Amino acid sequence: MQFSAAQIASIINAQIEGNEQAEINSFNNIEAAKEGDLSFLANPKYEDFIYSSKASVIIVNQSLQLKQKVSATLLRVEDAYAAFATLLKLYEDMRSKKLNGIETNSYIAETAKIGEDVYIGSFSYVSEKALIGKNTKIYPGCFIGENVKIGENTILYPGVKIYHECILGNNIIIHAGTIIGADGFGFAPQPDGSYQKVPQIGHVIIEDNVEIGANTTIDRATLNATIIKNGAKIDNLVQIAHNVEVGQNTGIAAQVGISGSTKIGKNVMIAGQAGIAGHLNIGDKTIITAQSGVAKSVKSKDIVLTGSPAFDHSSNRRSEVIFRHLPELEKRIIELEKLVKELSKQ
Amino acid sequence: MQFSAAQIASIINAQIEGNEQAEINSFNNIEAAKEGDLSFLANPKYEDFIYSSKASVIIVNQSLQLKQKVSATLLRVEDAYAAFATLLKLYEDMRSKKLNGIETNSYIAETAKIGEDVYIGSFSYVSEKALIGKNTKIYPGCFIGENVKIGENTILYPGVKIYHECILGNNIIIHAGTIIGADGFGFAPQPDGSYQKVPQIGHVIIEDNVEIGANTTIDRATLNATIIKNGAKIDNLVQIAHNVEVGQNTGIAAQVGISGSTKIGKNVMIAGQAGIAGHLNIGDKTIITAQSGVAKSVKSKDIVLTGSPAFDHSSNRRSEVIFRHLPELEKRIIELEKLVKELSKQ
Amino acid sequence: MQFSAAQIASIINAQIEGNEQAEINSFNNIEAAKEGDLSFLANPKYEDFIYSSKASVIIVNQSLQLKQKVSATLLRVEDAYAAFATLLKLYEDMRSKKLNGIETNSYIAETAKIGEDVYIGSFSYVSEKALIGKNTKIYPGCFIGENVKIGENTILYPGVKIYHECILGNNIIIHAGTIIGADGFGFAPQPDGSYQKVPQIGHVIIEDNVEIGANTTIDRATLNATIIKNGAKIDNLVQIAHNVEVGQNTGIAAQVGISGSTKIGKNVMIAGQAGIAGHLNIGDKTIITAQSGVAKSVKSKDIVLTGSPAFDHSSNRRSEVIFRHLPELEKRIIELEKLVKELSKQ
Repeated sequence: MQFSAAQIASIINAQIEGNEQAEINSFNNIEAAKEGDLSFLANPKYEDFIYSSKASVIIVNQSLQLKQKVSATLLRVEDAYAAFATLLKLYEDMRSKKLNGIETNSYIAETAKIGEDVYIGSFSYVSEKALIGKNTKIYPGCFIGENVKIGENTILYPGVKIYHECILGNNIIIHAGTIIGADGFGFAPQPDGSYQKVPQIGHVIIEDNVEIGANTTIDRATLNATIIKNGAKIDNLVQIAHNVEVGQNTGIAAQVGISGSTKIGKNVMIAGQAGIAGHLNIGDKTIITAQSGVAKSVKSKDIVLTGSPAFDHSSNRRSEVIFRHLPELEKRIIELEKLVKELSKQ
Repeated sequence: MQFSAAQIASIINAQIEGNEQAEINSFNNIEAAKEGDLSFLANPKYEDFIYSSKASVIIVNQSLQLKQKVSATLLRVEDAYAAFATLLKLYEDMRSKKLNGIETNSYIAETAKIGEDVYIGSFSYVSEKALIGKNTKIYPGCFIGENVKIGENTILYPGVKIYHECILGNNIIIHAGTIIGADGFGFAPQPDGSYQKVPQIGHVIIEDNVEIGANTTIDRATLNATIIKNGAKIDNLVQIAHNVEVGQNTGIAAQVGISGSTKIGKNVMIAGQAGIAGHLNIGDKTIITAQSGVAKSVKSKDIVLTGSPAFDHSSNRRSEVIFRHLPELEKRIIELEKLVKELSKQ
Repeated sequence: MQFSAAQIASIINAQIEGNEQAEINSFNNIEAAKEGDLSFLANPKYEDFIYSSKASVIIVNQSLQLKQKVSATLLRVEDAYAAFATLLKLYEDMRSKKLNGIETNSYIAETAKIGEDVYIGSFSYVSEKALIGKNTKIYPGCFIGENVKIGENTILYPGVKIYHECILGNNIIIHAGTIIGADGFGFAPQPDGSYQKVPQIGHVIIEDNVEIGANTTIDRATLNATIIKNGAKIDNLVQIAHNVEVGQNTGIAAQVGISGSTKIGKNVMIAGQAGIAGHLNIGDKTIITAQSGVAKSVKSKDIVLTGSPAFDHSSNRRSEVIFRHLPELEKRIIELEKLVKELSKQ
């Protein structure tokens, strides 16, 4: 690729500061950029790099106030990160081959219905009565169970397995190795110490615009549905148990685990390796920090939770500071005990 | 499906209270049930729902004492949860197609032996000298290594991979994407800082009636065997390292990790995201709560462990309560120091 | 197999103590060994077993001083564990069949280039312009994306998925179900609360001699590369986010998560279920204990970190000891308050 600063500016609707003829042919981070690279500055933490960066063109926020001169051509927009993402998307679309058609080594049951412009890779298996909506792309080695419904423009990367009866919407991306609709973990304890399996006859519903990472597991409901709502983003190796609901635009980082029947609100953010117990309600916009363990429902909005068990983040941090100095604290108590004993004697 | 309360009662051997002609055609949770639904009440926490539930028939424990009238027909049994599970199982059996036969796109080595009524899905690979017992079902995209032995009535969901020499018993369920018998993590540090791989020449033994979730990993032993004993239930994304033993009827929730050579007793319960260090012995009936980290062996029975590092649950909770108020505790110490200083001056 | 103590000694260059004609035909742990077994003693913790072991031959460290007589023939070497590993390797090489050739049910794009003595199993998919170096073995059910480059003598176990553009070196082992190069978790928040996907146009580079466990996920970089350096060893179910660098000979145990753009030095050891926040630098030889959560960069070498949030291991253990006795500590404060109040009254 080869573009001028002016061409880029017209795509992302930016104001140009500097040489509009500056040419770029690649993307790079601001700290690693070389001549010919297009970069961006969104996080103020990285501002210092803009003064030394060798990038030819840098996209910045409208609000940025420069402290020194910069050599790069600047493109000012409302949201530099989003504008950069838009350009990466265009680049990716240009570059990526249009996958289309059904490869000969796949298996498609006679009663399955396949929409227009669908791609089904080799070694993928589409079971009876499955529906695949138009322009959906199924990479090699996927499994689509009986009666599964998949919408339009959805992408399943290699090795995704969707159990029977699950329903996926439009514009969904599911990365390799993710399992949708395996049995929830439900067993009735028996008097002799063994367990009777509780059949899991529900399913999983994944709404539009959801993205799910690699090797994640989302279990089918015992009854009814496990639901991932519109626009939720779920990272790799996440565990979503049976009958969980994940709210709209909620983000869940890698290795998080959510126990059965818990309902997560909208725009919640859950950082890596956090866990949430079962049968809880987590209110909209709650933030749960990394490795936290949430054991109680959260009703009010805009709460930040930390710790295992988790409580208010700021309180947790204050307790943590003292935790680190507990040995000194104990010494002060020992000193006090000594002094008080002496005073008592007098 | 369409059944009367009387028909259901005769299947699960229940006493009927109310209209025995009440008809049901679906299953549902007590709080979400509609007319025509069959539901159950096992957990006393949900008792209030029974008075407002629209379910036509509700299975309850023999011991339940009603505080108000209920509109549904009640079916009284010893264990409502188990009876409900029995009905779900019958429903599932009725509904599920009998998988049978070897699909043309699979690969089966000439020296493999396949029992009667076995199903082997497309794109599954059965290596040399493998044995598959009768009525076992292998979904598409599985891999069965050399010399693997699998018993009868076992189910491998799509994409399960079993490395060479591993042995699986009867009536086992393994969910999609789970890996049995990958190499244990064993390396001998070298003087130059690099690592020499220690070959893992053992295998994995999985006894009868075990269920294993999706994307779990159970490593082969360095020597001898990693063993999962009769009736153990293991959830998704669990890590079982080399030479571990998991005892009979032990339950392990999602994302738990068990380090090498640790022996877990019978009827142990390990909650989500807990971890257990290597070379430990965990006694029968131990309970390990979520996110706990067990660093020492546990000999006595019926112990509950919490925290990282884990210790007695009740003690941990008492310490946690004070942890949350450490800043106030420190203030009280500062106040004491001030008072004692003043007293000393006098 | 059937070897004499003298034959084994000549392979590992050991001094013999005892009967050089002692015959061995199997390997075993020192505590479980029977007559005819070859065993080893490396960890002094297990020394007592040497006096009761029924092994016929035991490999021990040069430095071992016996406290009693032993019945087994001893083979003394510099490093008993490494010598034992060498013998296991020889045994494994003897026993394992040479995989070779391209199985008929695989798919290989016309523009892919396949080296000499490569094995490609059934149901594996090699995309356009992929390069597979000589003697590399790809088990059944793998996916190799467009433009992927794989070096020589590398092993991909069943079901490994490598996304487009990723680069793998020589002598690498990747266990079943691992996903290399899925999209990093990058989204730009929008004013309406939804997320815009940030395309991930970078890739993953895995250098020589790396081993990666089962069902691990290593994401591609947003720009440039996620890099796993020479000799690093990564266990099962590990999450490596976009733009991470893992240093030479670093070991990462199961279920660890490393957030985006973090750089890990050489010979770092990260124990199970630990997590590391994003954009950090972790210095060479740092040790991070199990379940720790590292939230700050670590500059100096040879530091041991524990806790979540993690700090110096010894300090953490001292604070932990007091944490367990916080209720008693509070009682002592209450007692002091009472005494001081009485003293003040006087």
